[in-house]
Amino acid sequence: MAVYTEVGDAELEVFLAEYDIGEADAFKGIAEGVENSNYLLTTTRGQYIVTLYEKRVDPDDLPFFLALMDHLSQRGINCPQPIHGRDGQALRRLAGKPAAITSFLHGMWPRRIAVKHCGPVGAALAGLHLAGQDFKMTRPNALSVAGWRPLFEASRSGADELGHGLARELEAELDVLEAEWPKVLPSGVIHADLFNDNVFFLHDRLSGLIDFYFACNDAFAYDVAICLNAWCFEPDRAFNATKARALLQAYEKTRPLEPAERKALPLLARGAALRFLLTRLYDWIHTPANALVKRKDPLEYLAYLRFHRSATSLADYGL
Amino acid sequence: MAVYTEVGDAELEVFLAEYDIGEADAFKGIAEGVENSNYLLTTTRGQYIVTLYEKRVDPDDLPFFLALMDHLSQRGINCPQPIHGRDGQALRRLAGKPAAITSFLHGMWPRRIAVKHCGPVGAALAGLHLAGQDFKMTRPNALSVAGWRPLFEASRSGADELGHGLARELEAELDVLEAEWPKVLPSGVIHADLFNDNVFFLHDRLSGLIDFYFACNDAFAYDVAICLNAWCFEPDRAFNATKARALLQAYEKTRPLEPAERKALPLLARGAALRFLLTRLYDWIHTPANALVKRKDPLEYLAYLRFHRSATSLADYGL
Repeated sequence: MAVYTEVGDAELEVFLAEYDIGEADAFKGIAEGVENSNYLLTTTRGQYIVTLYEKRVDPDDLPFFLALMDHLSQRGINCPQPIHGRDGQALRRLAGKPAAITSFLHGMWPRRIAVKHCGPVGAALAGLHLAGQDFKMTRPNALSVAGWRPLFEASRSGADELGHGLARELEAELDVLEAEWPKVLPSGVIHADLFNDNVFFLHDRLSGLIDFYFACNDAFAYDVAICLNAWCFEPDRAFNATKARALLQAYEKTRPLEPAERKALPLLARGAALRFLLTRLYDWIHTPANALVKRKDPLEYLAYLRFHRSATSLADYGL
Repeated sequence: MAVYTEVGDAELEVFLAEYDIGEADAFKGIAEGVENSNYLLTTTRGQYIVTLYEKRVDPDDLPFFLALMDHLSQRGINCPQPIHGRDGQALRRLAGKPAAITSFLHGMWPRRIAVKHCGPVGAALAGLHLAGQDFKMTRPNALSVAGWRPLFEASRSGADELGHGLARELEAELDVLEAEWPKVLPSGVIHADLFNDNVFFLHDRLSGLIDFYFACNDAFAYDVAICLNAWCFEPDRAFNATKARALLQAYEKTRPLEPAERKALPLLARGAALRFLLTRLYDWIHTPANALVKRKDPLEYLAYLRFHRSATSLADYGL
């Protein structure tokens, strides 16, 4: 939840004058998205989302994100569609921050993940991978294997405070992943953060995907591995193979995994677990205790990581 | 800003089944209201606000607040109108908390207060006072003069850490206010918290008043005094008599102040400043540093208090 930047009514009026979407009728900060400030804008024409990009987003990446959402929307993916101003621009400034208006997506993200959600997520992820194939811009994944060791080094001192022996375990894990990380797998644009709060459902049907601000170019199967972490563990941290089977089978109906991808999946899932463990660990150590953001427990992902380490084939994932 | 309680999709569905307002289409936590969790609900029929009452609100007071909003709505005041379920009830439970649905008010609260806002606020406040006159329920003001000393005693130890000599200054102030607080002034239902984030404007017209969860029975002029504090000081803490004049003149067009009220106003304004100073001081001292709520600076109100102490008549307020 986050509203970091307050927007004055006068500056909002000036900002909206660049668009053809009517006049502001209501403008409410919403508890959505961790990295940016989001407002729900109601105008005489309808509902929109106004996003102010805060310091964790590199302004140089914004043209990629906005063009990607344009591209995916044109290919029928239900994602926020950037609204372009009269000058054709989707990106401008508001309250001193880069800002954009996107379409409003109906639906709610599932607070409690059930098996029924996992199939639609797998199908939507595969659809996203196919729809992004002819997208021309690229953005490397800064949070893939090469980015993990620097993240670990920046958090090493705090790791053992969180769990005895954690630093040594993570370092050994890094050694394995760096040595064995697959280099040639089918790749393209991935979402890279498809957690339950980024997927909307309406009447049990998936109605939209949001928050493309980690999207990048990487192996499709790594995106699948992220979803296995995000959707298939229970609150007690146990893996639910039924959820994984639903997710993977639905994914494969739209985009079958190649043999190399299936073989790599347990390792990719370890990597994905480590990636979220490391960013949470970093935030845990570097977020001031009085910050407005609630820190997430890194050790949740240690449990996930250990599960994936014990897995040897797709049979462990319900297939 | 606040969303303290997460609502599951399944429990929301059960909750909404009690109402005739269509099915949920979107449900977003909004950064509005400090005391409760608020969600913007979009249904197939329109937009609504769902409020979950958190621990700072006494559940026994909720029938008063909801009946008051019903009463005021019926008298043409633009305030959130409680939506009643098929059983006639406006108050039920959601996610383990007392909860209610109210109508959605269009407009935005002014982030930067200008003179043009102050007249409409004065007029709306007077309209509210008149509209509440035949409301039958009553609720004493727990945060009036009798409540201030206990609040001060609970915060005394921290006062001097915040400002040298603060405890002594506040105690002297309390002595004066307790001795001189007027006992017989025209009274009725007051809003008691009409700050700028509780007043919506649309195209420079006041479009609604929200957040009646401090409403109570007290002197009308005390509500005016609260507004003088809330609307008429500049960011540099200087009093703006032009704003005060606009507010008071507009108030008096609808409900002229009686001589006793005019005479009491500087003292009531001191009391109002002390009331917000004390609650902020209490929160400052008792809010854990890692809380999700941003603490507000109590010393802002010390500056206001000192101004009112120096005032002798309504001439100091622009009249």
